[in-house]
Amino acid sequence: MAAVALARSGRTVSLSRAFPSTPSQENPRPAHHYMWRDVRPHDGGVAMDYLGVFYHGTATTHIDALCHVWDSNGMWDGKNPDDVIGFTGAKYGTVDAWSDGILTRGVLLDVPKHRGTPYVTMDTPVHGWELEEIAAQEGIEIQPGDAVLVYSGREAYALDNGGVWGGGPGRPGLHASCLPFIRSNDISILGWDMMDAAPNEYELPWTVHGAIFAYGVALVDNALLEPLAKACGEEQRYEFMLTINPLKVIGGTGSPVNPIAVF
Amino acid sequence: MAAVALARSGRTVSLSRAFPSTPSQENPRPAHHYMWRDVRPHDGGVAMDYLGVFYHGTATTHIDALCHVWDSNGMWDGKNPDDVIGFTGAKYGTVDAWSDGILTRGVLLDVPKHRGTPYVTMDTPVHGWELEEIAAQEGIEIQPGDAVLVYSGREAYALDNGGVWGGGPGRPGLHASCLPFIRSNDISILGWDMMDAAPNEYELPWTVHGAIFAYGVALVDNALLEPLAKACGEEQRYEFMLTINPLKVIGGTGSPVNPIAVF
Amino acid sequence: MAAVALARSGRTVSLSRAFPSTPSQENPRPAHHYMWRDVRPHDGGVAMDYLGVFYHGTATTHIDALCHVWDSNGMWDGKNPDDVIGFTGAKYGTVDAWSDGILTRGVLLDVPKHRGTPYVTMDTPVHGWELEEIAAQEGIEIQPGDAVLVYSGREAYALDNGGVWGGGPGRPGLHASCLPFIRSNDISILGWDMMDAAPNEYELPWTVHGAIFAYGVALVDNALLEPLAKACGEEQRYEFMLTINPLKVIGGTGSPVNPIAVF
Amino acid sequence: MAAVALARSGRTVSLSRAFPSTPSQENPRPAHHYMWRDVRPHDGGVAMDYLGVFYHGTATTHIDALCHVWDSNGMWDGKNPDDVIGFTGAKYGTVDAWSDGILTRGVLLDVPKHRGTPYVTMDTPVHGWELEEIAAQEGIEIQPGDAVLVYSGREAYALDNGGVWGGGPGRPGLHASCLPFIRSNDISILGWDMMDAAPNEYELPWTVHGAIFAYGVALVDNALLEPLAKACGEEQRYEFMLTINPLKVIGGTGSPVNPIAVF
Repeated sequence: MAAVALARSGRTVSLSRAFPSTPSQENPRPAHHYMWRDVRPHDGGVAMDYLGVFYHGTATTHIDALCHVWDSNGMWDGKNPDDVIGFTGAKYGTVDAWSDGILTRGVLLDVPKHRGTPYVTMDTPVHGWELEEIAAQEGIEIQPGDAVLVYSGREAYALDNGGVWGGGPGRPGLHASCLPFIRSNDISILGWDMMDAAPNEYELPWTVHGAIFAYGVALVDNALLEPLAKACGEEQRYEFMLTINPLKVIGGTGSPVNPIAVF
Repeated sequence: MAAVALARSGRTVSLSRAFPSTPSQENPRPAHHYMWRDVRPHDGGVAMDYLGVFYHGTATTHIDALCHVWDSNGMWDGKNPDDVIGFTGAKYGTVDAWSDGILTRGVLLDVPKHRGTPYVTMDTPVHGWELEEIAAQEGIEIQPGDAVLVYSGREAYALDNGGVWGGGPGRPGLHASCLPFIRSNDISILGWDMMDAAPNEYELPWTVHGAIFAYGVALVDNALLEPLAKACGEEQRYEFMLTINPLKVIGGTGSPVNPIAVF
Repeated sequence: MAAVALARSGRTVSLSRAFPSTPSQENPRPAHHYMWRDVRPHDGGVAMDYLGVFYHGTATTHIDALCHVWDSNGMWDGKNPDDVIGFTGAKYGTVDAWSDGILTRGVLLDVPKHRGTPYVTMDTPVHGWELEEIAAQEGIEIQPGDAVLVYSGREAYALDNGGVWGGGPGRPGLHASCLPFIRSNDISILGWDMMDAAPNEYELPWTVHGAIFAYGVALVDNALLEPLAKACGEEQRYEFMLTINPLKVIGGTGSPVNPIAVF
Repeated sequence: MAAVALARSGRTVSLSRAFPSTPSQENPRPAHHYMWRDVRPHDGGVAMDYLGVFYHGTATTHIDALCHVWDSNGMWDGKNPDDVIGFTGAKYGTVDAWSDGILTRGVLLDVPKHRGTPYVTMDTPVHGWELEEIAAQEGIEIQPGDAVLVYSGREAYALDNGGVWGGGPGRPGLHASCLPFIRSNDISILGWDMMDAAPNEYELPWTVHGAIFAYGVALVDNALLEPLAKACGEEQRYEFMLTINPLKVIGGTGSPVNPIAVF
């Protein structure tokens, strides 16, 4: 419970973007948010809403379960997608494995601060050696089981690029060289605002997303890390308690989540 | 951060039922869970799923925001539903007020254990004085801001009643006398497996659900408390750290959640 | 175009039930109908609605495509479901085969009128020989390509049975002996208000629904036939022009429809 | 039943685009099409699909009910949207008014053929006087109650414009001068592939869409008219029987449809 000891001040920061019901280039299948209002006896009333979301992709903050992607060698733990992926859910490596919640140490690696630039660009992907440097500079020794959050400045990038980071033919992000970083540090979760840089030069279907099937590492895609970067700067520490409470979807390939950092 | 000090052993317990995609009497509008599978270049593949849920009602574990219900005197904080409830979301008392997460002390009040019976019945609703007694017996002094979880034995009840607790003309649960208990103890959240007993004799549209608009207390409906009751018994303590991380739905009337208790 | 010649008076009758957004025993996965309202420049406005429906089952008036069901011998035309049913749609026998619309002669076989009873019951399923008798009594000679609509009095049955016909452990309807009737008359479409009687005594997964894979006959399930029976009685003829315009869903297993009879 | 007399050869043509489940600039809220497969006793099986669609906009072929849009003077027939538009549906001018189906004479006005150009452009909107000319050239005398379909060459336009016609800041289409044409000819339905040209110079929230609230004329948006234009050319007649069978959605603001022309 070393992670719990990091929760000292009670300051909490959400790592979630808003539930993405507005269409955009990076949100081509917007979430549904429909309202309903009804009357109840004795002049009472009730408002309810429907939430629907095809959460993978570049808009929703969500966690990827280990069954989410694979390559020609198969899924995580050597499974065959034809055996695992069914019409009513998946059968292995599903998000319900984490239904009891994820509570671990989170560490933020702040790339823009390290570089002295507002955001990562197409020409300057994030490399594994750079993440090592940032951790060292921040005074963080990454430990097995850590959730590592890589902040690349997505909001600032979007401000300069028509409001979006993803959804186009290419996108800035992490270089495949981050995979050895993930492996050698034995982290349990990778969270990021920008994801794998695209296109990649390796003729791989997935580069950093390969952490799922290669190492059994969960991803938190589309995390909102700008407020967390600000908080880390103010708190002068880049480690915190992190809780992720995925919805208990039996057979799910992931879940929309609202990860919370606690200082 | 007294709540954090309760997380000592690292044992975590989910208070969430499974995402409710199967129809039943108490789940008349089942959640959507649809799978999708696609190919990616270089022999890769991906599985994704759509989740859709009209989460209020008696099936989904969810948190109620303060705009969810009202009576003839209006909504929480005196608001008028005609001003607040719009087609694209609500404007006041919405779930996004809690986007930074809820982390507080949770206490479980175990009614069946206190009574020596497996579950609460239609004839024996839970009263406020009884909750005081249970807290005292458990050695719990309820404090302002606590999340109070009232376990009434829903799973055992369902086993004896065709697999369901709710959805019929009546249902066992908490008596309106629990409202003063909630108020005088100044709790912040009420979680429960059974909800307000129905019908009620007061010609009120809402009895215990009235905690929302009367006191500004959030509710966690359809919590799964049987495993928590077991854990509390084994741990020999009825208090723990509780985290609830609602989805960040702007203008939402609540959110499906997976509350996690940490011992 | 003999069917067109039947459209003489211009009287039209819908064979569709209302879009089924209200839960019931026979509608365990209700359709979604959510409203949305927004403003436009210069004080304009717009209202839009979302329609979502899992249309197979016992609530929605819909047409079944030939890929909808199968038995141990496979699908229509000998196809293997493992080859045909994919995550983004089916590949053979799909509803888009009928995208240019169905326009044919429709004939109504009015079972309650023939029997002098208000509706078919569990104990008295509709048999194939009875359908022959009804056609003869109505002066109808069934021709290849006809759409045959079998009215069994579902609305009257529901009035006497808690508001529902389907969704329980058993339901009245057509006996497996109707299959030879369908085959020997070479009809193209079978429409019905009640469907296959259940349970069946033949250890078959599908009885009359077997018309899909055995003969390549489309079904129109949950047709509303009471108004049509009334119109046929008033018009003193049991044949009419019928148009069914399925939605153009590529790879769909069917479509919600509103079949229209024209006298 | 003059319309029926136009159905002579039995050639049928669908005026519907494919159910639009693929995202694009003109389909920012794609329809849902999810598959489901399950087993049945005795080695049987079943495939079902969920269809969900927010059908207004520029992707789905659909009919607009009279409650769909309004301007500062209110809705069709002088109604106030605050009275009409509710959370569970609209109360006036709804699509269920047409549940018994629409069967009328359809006429196609082929603008590209008349102009000798492949499609209408931003600079050359379709004017009312031009529609009069086209009808005369085609030998069509427009009659009260006709469904007038204006073909502007959307598919050819899309081929030259990145695959889309709509969804951008402007779009080619019909000029506001078509409104008097609609009124003076007393047509009942306007169908079109391109819709109102945008932007418009009149500071109106809606130009040709104003036919809804100004005249009580239904619109069929996003009709697929290229195949119909081809058929009219081959058949050498621009009139045909048209059937539109909207889904019976109580309180709906319209419906996805598959209009069928019969020659």
